[in-house]
Amino acid sequence: MDVNSKFSEISKGLKGSAVRELLKYAEKPDVISFGGGMPNPLSFPIKDVEDIVHYILENYGAKALQYGSTEGVEELRELISTRLNSKYNFNARKENIIMLNGSQSGLYMVSKVFLNRKDYVISEAPTYVGAIAAFNAQDPSWLAIDLENDGMDLNMLEKKIKFALNEGKTPKFIYVIPTFQNPAGLTWSLSKRKELLEIASKYDLIVFEDDPYSEIRFSGEPVSPIKSLDKENRVIYMGTFSKVLSPGIRLGYIFANDEILRKISLLKQGVDLCTNVFSQYLAMEYLKRGVIDQQVPKIVDLYRKKRDLMLESLEKYMPDGTEWTRPEGGMFLWVTLDKKIDTEILLKKALEKKVAYVIGSAFYPDGRGKNSMRLNFTYSKDNDIIEGIKRLGSVIREEMS
Amino acid sequence: MDVNSKFSEISKGLKGSAVRELLKYAEKPDVISFGGGMPNPLSFPIKDVEDIVHYILENYGAKALQYGSTEGVEELRELISTRLNSKYNFNARKENIIMLNGSQSGLYMVSKVFLNRKDYVISEAPTYVGAIAAFNAQDPSWLAIDLENDGMDLNMLEKKIKFALNEGKTPKFIYVIPTFQNPAGLTWSLSKRKELLEIASKYDLIVFEDDPYSEIRFSGEPVSPIKSLDKENRVIYMGTFSKVLSPGIRLGYIFANDEILRKISLLKQGVDLCTNVFSQYLAMEYLKRGVIDQQVPKIVDLYRKKRDLMLESLEKYMPDGTEWTRPEGGMFLWVTLDKKIDTEILLKKALEKKVAYVIGSAFYPDGRGKNSMRLNFTYSKDNDIIEGIKRLGSVIREEMS
Repeated sequence: MDVNSKFSEISKGLKGSAVRELLKYAEKPDVISFGGGMPNPLSFPIKDVEDIVHYILENYGAKALQYGSTEGVEELRELISTRLNSKYNFNARKENIIMLNGSQSGLYMVSKVFLNRKDYVISEAPTYVGAIAAFNAQDPSWLAIDLENDGMDLNMLEKKIKFALNEGKTPKFIYVIPTFQNPAGLTWSLSKRKELLEIASKYDLIVFEDDPYSEIRFSGEPVSPIKSLDKENRVIYMGTFSKVLSPGIRLGYIFANDEILRKISLLKQGVDLCTNVFSQYLAMEYLKRGVIDQQVPKIVDLYRKKRDLMLESLEKYMPDGTEWTRPEGGMFLWVTLDKKIDTEILLKKALEKKVAYVIGSAFYPDGRGKNSMRLNFTYSKDNDIIEGIKRLGSVIREEMS
Repeated sequence: MDVNSKFSEISKGLKGSAVRELLKYAEKPDVISFGGGMPNPLSFPIKDVEDIVHYILENYGAKALQYGSTEGVEELRELISTRLNSKYNFNARKENIIMLNGSQSGLYMVSKVFLNRKDYVISEAPTYVGAIAAFNAQDPSWLAIDLENDGMDLNMLEKKIKFALNEGKTPKFIYVIPTFQNPAGLTWSLSKRKELLEIASKYDLIVFEDDPYSEIRFSGEPVSPIKSLDKENRVIYMGTFSKVLSPGIRLGYIFANDEILRKISLLKQGVDLCTNVFSQYLAMEYLKRGVIDQQVPKIVDLYRKKRDLMLESLEKYMPDGTEWTRPEGGMFLWVTLDKKIDTEILLKKALEKKVAYVIGSAFYPDGRGKNSMRLNFTYSKDNDIIEGIKRLGSVIREEMS
């Protein structure tokens, strides 16, 4: 059968990456991998999950195993809106919250709701690799704006918006991860958050704020989510239970205005019908019992130590001319090497030395970032963090000599 | 903010249906609804789920709560392929199985992998309303082929294929639910299954076989899935745990050839990253312990009685000139009324009498089927089946007089 001629044009463009193949080696037990984006298994409240599941099946029984509405379990959406309102000063109502089978699914659906082929979409550069995969399924044109230490380069942003408008095309939305960004580990300043909204208002643009890590802050002062500064209801806010409960239960949510939420909901009927009901009841009890507020500080303590350990190890083992970010939270930090080093070539050598990372160019829609890498500090054991960075330092040193 | 101008063209076409709104009334407790497509709550093995979840958390712990691979948990895929091979004589290997967040997600992804806008897609008429929603998100052109008592009208099928080829466009795939079809409750004969494959082979077309109900057979002899007759590896086979375990855990799977599976997997990385891991472990133990083989006969017994009750009630209460199918399994039957009756107009009157169904035209991509309706017989209590059909009969009688 001739299958290839039958694939859609977008599907023909889907190619496996050589790096993804390489990273399969990183799964071998003797490789220390900073490549994944996984929470530490110690962060999962297994005993609480067991108690809660028992309770759910005894008390809700069949309801937790049945189909649910496309928007999600009402009581859970109510609890989420109450929590968001009290933590971040939102004015969310449950009607403006839709539950998702993981926030990756939100990335996909928002892009599908807005993007025709070749429409402009704006992101930070670097940006989340999963957002690149989701948005690319609509075949958009990217405007990837440099990320500085305090947020996007807003002069470049305005220049690129004007460039698109000159072509007669309004960019469809601005996608940002303003807090403990993935992959860079950087956090936008309050003033840049406000400025972004001013620019969005000036050009009547939508902001899509992806916020998986806000609760995982180790140090420094919390900064308000962009959504909490949004007086014009132009921000789509996305949250997830992946970092504060479990990623395996695939549960995220979007808070947005009526019109956007309605479109997402209509699309979702075709995309996956409804969100896992069992996971929703689990998260509902997790919130209702306040277990989340006992668990998050434990996760923060665990990860703070690991971040500190990685920063100390980088200080100790990295050659001069190497730079890295110092995240106040989240799961990742970003290393920039001497310009002549290509981290894709380096990866093979690193894997020979049994250490892995994700190459920087994976996080640029336009393939930049060749001399950079993302390191995850949450998953590895403490000793492995020290040993892994030591190995990485020696691989880089060798490459530089 | 001007949101509407920002929606993608496909998103602009997404409209809520008046009928869906009407059916919200059907959720009121005093309405007897044959409208939903829900398994009976009594069919869920709640006690087994509780035992299994306890075991999973004790024995797999963090692994069941962590991210998983895009393709799914290997041991589960192995168990599914073994089961399929022994039940249906497939020659599946775990490498050709991908797990899905519900089979709705499979409908969506297969359509996205193959369909450009205005590409031809072939389906039965009527067909599953969720497939219409999923495929329409790619804006295809439909060739909806009449469903006869023993399967598709294959003469019409060949005529429509030629029609498309004359336009220089090969239809991308033929979507069928050959066993206890949703909505019609009909089952394709073995000879039509073979003939379909011959036609598919002659024109080099892909067949997409959706098989959620095969295990739920009340009477008659099992007929082989089309996939088991497929010597050329051109059939994409989709199964689900929704009808044999629980729909709330959102778990389905696709068995297809290497090239197709690889494209689905690449697309899935952008669409939802991976399938719910907790649900996968639950299904894995459900299969491994053989609980499924104790549970399915119970579900079959429960639903057989309900089907019989609905058939008896239809016989008793429906006016002359009304016809209905007599399903040997599954969850639905299909009622065809006098040609002058429009079931969309009738629905308002039915809801006044506190009984609900889904209008036939919802199952036709081209809006045909105005004098028909789908009835679900699995969800309602026995007395409600009798009383509901009685009410429906009197509403129809009134309309005819």
